[in-house]
Amino acid sequence: MDIKTIVERNDTVPGCIFDWVMQALILLSVITFSIETLPDLETGTRKLLHITEVVIVIIFTIEYLLRLYVSDKKLSYVLSIYGLIDLIAILPFYLSFFLSFSVDLRWLRIVRLIKLFRAGKAMRRFSRAFVIAKEEIAIFGVVTMMLLYLSAVGIYFCENEAQPEAFKSIVHSLWWAVTTLTTVGYGDVYPITAGGKIFTFIILMIGLGLVAIPAGLLASALSKARMEEQEEK
Amino acid sequence: MDIKTIVERNDTVPGCIFDWVMQALILLSVITFSIETLPDLETGTRKLLHITEVVIVIIFTIEYLLRLYVSDKKLSYVLSIYGLIDLIAILPFYLSFFLSFSVDLRWLRIVRLIKLFRAGKAMRRFSRAFVIAKEEIAIFGVVTMMLLYLSAVGIYFCENEAQPEAFKSIVHSLWWAVTTLTTVGYGDVYPITAGGKIFTFIILMIGLGLVAIPAGLLASALSKARMEEQEEK
Amino acid sequence: MDIKTIVERNDTVPGCIFDWVMQALILLSVITFSIETLPDLETGTRKLLHITEVVIVIIFTIEYLLRLYVSDKKLSYVLSIYGLIDLIAILPFYLSFFLSFSVDLRWLRIVRLIKLFRAGKAMRRFSRAFVIAKEEIAIFGVVTMMLLYLSAVGIYFCENEAQPEAFKSIVHSLWWAVTTLTTVGYGDVYPITAGGKIFTFIILMIGLGLVAIPAGLLASALSKARMEEQEEK
Amino acid sequence: MDIKTIVERNDTVPGCIFDWVMQALILLSVITFSIETLPDLETGTRKLLHITEVVIVIIFTIEYLLRLYVSDKKLSYVLSIYGLIDLIAILPFYLSFFLSFSVDLRWLRIVRLIKLFRAGKAMRRFSRAFVIAKEEIAIFGVVTMMLLYLSAVGIYFCENEAQPEAFKSIVHSLWWAVTTLTTVGYGDVYPITAGGKIFTFIILMIGLGLVAIPAGLLASALSKARMEEQEEK
Repeated sequence: MDIKTIVERNDTVPGCIFDWVMQALILLSVITFSIETLPDLETGTRKLLHITEVVIVIIFTIEYLLRLYVSDKKLSYVLSIYGLIDLIAILPFYLSFFLSFSVDLRWLRIVRLIKLFRAGKAMRRFSRAFVIAKEEIAIFGVVTMMLLYLSAVGIYFCENEAQPEAFKSIVHSLWWAVTTLTTVGYGDVYPITAGGKIFTFIILMIGLGLVAIPAGLLASALSKARMEEQEEK
Repeated sequence: MDIKTIVERNDTVPGCIFDWVMQALILLSVITFSIETLPDLETGTRKLLHITEVVIVIIFTIEYLLRLYVSDKKLSYVLSIYGLIDLIAILPFYLSFFLSFSVDLRWLRIVRLIKLFRAGKAMRRFSRAFVIAKEEIAIFGVVTMMLLYLSAVGIYFCENEAQPEAFKSIVHSLWWAVTTLTTVGYGDVYPITAGGKIFTFIILMIGLGLVAIPAGLLASALSKARMEEQEEK
Repeated sequence: MDIKTIVERNDTVPGCIFDWVMQALILLSVITFSIETLPDLETGTRKLLHITEVVIVIIFTIEYLLRLYVSDKKLSYVLSIYGLIDLIAILPFYLSFFLSFSVDLRWLRIVRLIKLFRAGKAMRRFSRAFVIAKEEIAIFGVVTMMLLYLSAVGIYFCENEAQPEAFKSIVHSLWWAVTTLTTVGYGDVYPITAGGKIFTFIILMIGLGLVAIPAGLLASALSKARMEEQEEK
Repeated sequence: MDIKTIVERNDTVPGCIFDWVMQALILLSVITFSIETLPDLETGTRKLLHITEVVIVIIFTIEYLLRLYVSDKKLSYVLSIYGLIDLIAILPFYLSFFLSFSVDLRWLRIVRLIKLFRAGKAMRRFSRAFVIAKEEIAIFGVVTMMLLYLSAVGIYFCENEAQPEAFKSIVHSLWWAVTTLTTVGYGDVYPITAGGKIFTFIILMIGLGLVAIPAGLLASALSKARMEEQEEK
């Protein structure tokens, strides 16, 4: 049982433990990042969060060097997607010592989240479902965009006079189209004229289904992808 | 390789390029139209947008004349849907030189959007799905209208006394019915009496499903249309 | 071609015309009823609406008498559902001459809407779909009720102290549960405490699916009902 | 016909009546609990509710003792899930006589609701559907969590400067992510900057489907579970 097996494969007990520990650290790193953005933290908490982050970065650096050390083709690891993610996740920390950035790059840490998907099986089925339904999803993407645009044009002509601030232009009206056709309906912009309300009604009757269809398509593509997987076994 | 092939067919490289350029111009035209409605544009930007539009109209005019020139049956092209769209999209621009309109017809430019669907395949599947599910969609259309109406009647009797302004009449209450049953819920009108709230609960339990069903029907009709296409091949 | 055929069957041209005219009159009657509730109508419009209603009631009375005259079993028509609807729709008008009601029964006119479903085929498929899915719908009905109740209990304990007015009791919190789990989200009541927000998140993750499931069940039951119909042919 | 049959089985008439009575009492108990939380009850109503609760607790105590008396393995009943629920539901009432609690445990009464599921068949199908779709639901659970988190990170960077109060930190922004991606859209927090609105649009286009997919998966798993049940018969 050498280091290579532990680091690169997760079908052995130590490899599996290594994997879980690294994933737990990613989660911890993401959580500390989120808490750090709280504006009214005490100095003690802030110090603790900083120490946690330093420790995590050191562990990730060791992991990066280990993976580099055990890989047979070192350059191809460095240039692979996971290699780049591993680097991007730790680089901002070290760069901040040598350079004084005007832009804070610490948010690059959240790219580590992508590593949680390394497990593979879930992602493979997802991408397969996308391949199955990609044509339909593309069609609905275009149709949805058009519907959103036409809704914005329509409501602009209906409401611009009555609410010149909320429906200032077609570009501004797009925000109304998005919040209405997704049924989010924050209530910050809504039609007040009779024409605008009737237009909203018509566009909702047509559009409600359209916006909800891609989810249905993806769901059925997923069940199809699962069936294909079971047949392969 | 003559002009006719380039203009009328998109299965050759030059024809395909021509098609893509024209579609890009349609998109550009729609975007400039949207930006023009912004009320606080600088004179420079406005001038630039105007020049862009003039150039686009000239190109579309050339396209129209080309299509007219290469088509074998000239009159049938002029009277076809695409011929009319091509004409409607450019006519308002030229008419504005000779006539002084009180009504601004420039918004007719957005009819060009319909030309984006010329590609055909996507639209064919869509219309096929509509044919498959048209009976169900019609039924649900009628049922949804009735439900909306009955909701408006019910909430009118529940809330009219407590909120005489928002639920002024059954016609006004329809706006509440639309925003509630589509779950948009802007929050501009909502019941405040116990009776109105209980009525909303009951109508939501019945109606939530109904309004969402047509999307499911269309989605399953679409997958059926795809299967039929694959069988034909 | 006698009156009986025209009134009772819609597979002949005159019968079909009679059917369509009566359905158009029902729609007209419902529309006038809705407009009558508008509070700021002019006297002229109000008079016109009244005359329209009187004419419609007279036509419906003639229809009722005709149906009574042509039916072979007069009593069974009077006691049938459609017979009762026909009577309920016209009775309030005549009763208002003889009696002075404190309660306005004119809204009973909207029962005529049910007659629009007389066509049958649509309704038959609907009821068949309900029979297919009734067990699942019942289960989800109970589960949804429980989820709503438990949501109300949870949010009551989370938010009662911070918002004693909006979350006064479990009974009042039910209104929040209904507007949230149906994703209507008017914005009249929403959690403001951290506990309430986390609870809302958890309950939405569990409940969002549950509330949307019955629609899916009914949609698949409808397509099954359609398939059964096609097999019978 | 002895007591054992009545209490433990519901395939005989007296057993069935016993079952229905107990379930009605559970409902009554839950309703009285809800009404008790109303802050402005009259003393008479409060007294009536208290008496109702006392009577119900006594009946449930008798039921508990009966079940204990008739069960062959007394200890295994006490330690079974239903035995514990039966105990938890009545215990707080008796404990309140001997001890003076600072924490009110009367809300434990709502655990009785679980007993409504004793019927079994509905629950069995539910759990079977969960087993069928558990892998997909787990995947979507993780994906939804990530999407919510990434939405919160994105909107935090877009809106924090413009709305430092509503989007105070990534943790606070999660509330926006939850209300938006579930399309509840209370309207208490929403983006006001152009960047935030465009981000909302993108995240809604991606996320709307994702959040709605689990419901579709569960619905199809339920219909599959029903089919499996029918095959077993």
